[in-house]
Amino acid sequence: MRLVSYLHVGRPGFGVVQDDRIKVLSDGDTTLMDFLREPALLRTLESCKRELPLADVTLLPPIPNPGKIICIGLNYHEHVAESGRTVTRHPSLFARYPESQVGHLSPMVSPLESDKLDYEGELAVIIGKGGRRIKAEQAMAHIAGYACYNDGSVRDWQHHTSQFLAGKSFVGTGAFGPWMVTADEIEDPRPLRLQTRLNGQIMQDATIDMMITPIPEQIAYISSIMPLAPGDVIVTGTPGGVGTKRTPPVYLRDGDVVEVEIDRVGVLRNPVRAEQRDASV
Amino acid sequence: MRLVSYLHVGRPGFGVVQDDRIKVLSDGDTTLMDFLREPALLRTLESCKRELPLADVTLLPPIPNPGKIICIGLNYHEHVAESGRTVTRHPSLFARYPESQVGHLSPMVSPLESDKLDYEGELAVIIGKGGRRIKAEQAMAHIAGYACYNDGSVRDWQHHTSQFLAGKSFVGTGAFGPWMVTADEIEDPRPLRLQTRLNGQIMQDATIDMMITPIPEQIAYISSIMPLAPGDVIVTGTPGGVGTKRTPPVYLRDGDVVEVEIDRVGVLRNPVRAEQRDASV
Repeated sequence: MRLVSYLHVGRPGFGVVQDDRIKVLSDGDTTLMDFLREPALLRTLESCKRELPLADVTLLPPIPNPGKIICIGLNYHEHVAESGRTVTRHPSLFARYPESQVGHLSPMVSPLESDKLDYEGELAVIIGKGGRRIKAEQAMAHIAGYACYNDGSVRDWQHHTSQFLAGKSFVGTGAFGPWMVTADEIEDPRPLRLQTRLNGQIMQDATIDMMITPIPEQIAYISSIMPLAPGDVIVTGTPGGVGTKRTPPVYLRDGDVVEVEIDRVGVLRNPVRAEQRDASV
Repeated sequence: MRLVSYLHVGRPGFGVVQDDRIKVLSDGDTTLMDFLREPALLRTLESCKRELPLADVTLLPPIPNPGKIICIGLNYHEHVAESGRTVTRHPSLFARYPESQVGHLSPMVSPLESDKLDYEGELAVIIGKGGRRIKAEQAMAHIAGYACYNDGSVRDWQHHTSQFLAGKSFVGTGAFGPWMVTADEIEDPRPLRLQTRLNGQIMQDATIDMMITPIPEQIAYISSIMPLAPGDVIVTGTPGGVGTKRTPPVYLRDGDVVEVEIDRVGVLRNPVRAEQRDASV
């Protein structure tokens, strides 16, 4: 099942994508997050027969307002090497704030403050069943689904200090979508291939099994610190090939189109818009 | 005005503290966050004549569930020096998640995973009026109020990697309170003295004007990245004297009592509880 959150005529909703149509599941008040918290809702909503053409809606991030977005840094060997760092025993965690997110086809925003917006294609894991101190062996049962994520990074601000947060929080830099593919459709994400393309050119190309800290161990580590809750999002790290480490460096420019494609998950596509100085924000 | 959020007989509420009583402002549905978003609510609620003895409630963090908690690291020279770091041109930002917070008098939890829980006394700034790209000269007008914060840090986990988040997110490690003192009562926080005491012994002692990045510049920097919203919390950095850098190091132990006192704001007091292996979490 491919679940989307969307705006239709200014009103939020969510539903299941079937070909080029959305079977509407929302009754106006419930969100995809409610459905994750209370899967039994789905049954009551199945009676809903409303449909919408997919082309008529603006897709939002599948979870527009997660309680927590937890990002894993430096989780592929090639990216660790290109970053001039060494592998650590534990995964590197940093946060994004929900305000930084945009959905499929919405512009990623290169802000006034910088000309160094970079892409980072990643697999996003969406938590379905919460818990604290989840064992790695049981972790996969806590996943509701998967999506593509572009963990867009404003590189100069990311490196203002030792902490990445400043470069990971700019408005409109975290693309998430196009939908959440439910976990029943992807028994094992490890063989899946992830590609990031900039204007059609392949910039990152890896398989999920190349992660240094695999997904179950990420869930175990994070949940030993804090409870995971339905709708929390883990952004599982980017492979080698980011723009900032190329010679010469490549940054996202107005009019560029960046895509993150993951087998069996989908293609997340976003145009890039350079913010204009007179724009109201 | 000293505004508190609390639980009374299991139900959340908020109100104004007057001596040893709370004048109840909540009607069961509104929260202190709603009041910050819509200050006019206060007028309609002023007619509420209900009172509660302060001793009858469990205080929650003044903002139990902020949209964003943004922490400033390494913002006092003595703490930068004891941390073996150098001053950066920009403030160092990292996040906490709301689940890590506890209120006044609730235990700070030394988790099973570590015996290296440390205190960090700080001034918390609570945003009243939101905005993006707030100029430093106008920043003080965006502050709703102030509180004490103990940015408790699990030091070994904080240093698992370069990113602090893992050590700043354990359940029950971020104490926040006892209340929010509204900004009209503190025209200028710079002369205020901040002290952290462990079992009565002074461990940190500084004035707010010793910050490397002052509060208005923090607000300007953060809001150039992302919009600030009512109820967002900025935790403004800790002075020198943290436990982990002492010889020998001092960590929080079961039964300890840690206090963060800030002039004209109040005293935030928390006992420390070491989590037991058989505890359900």
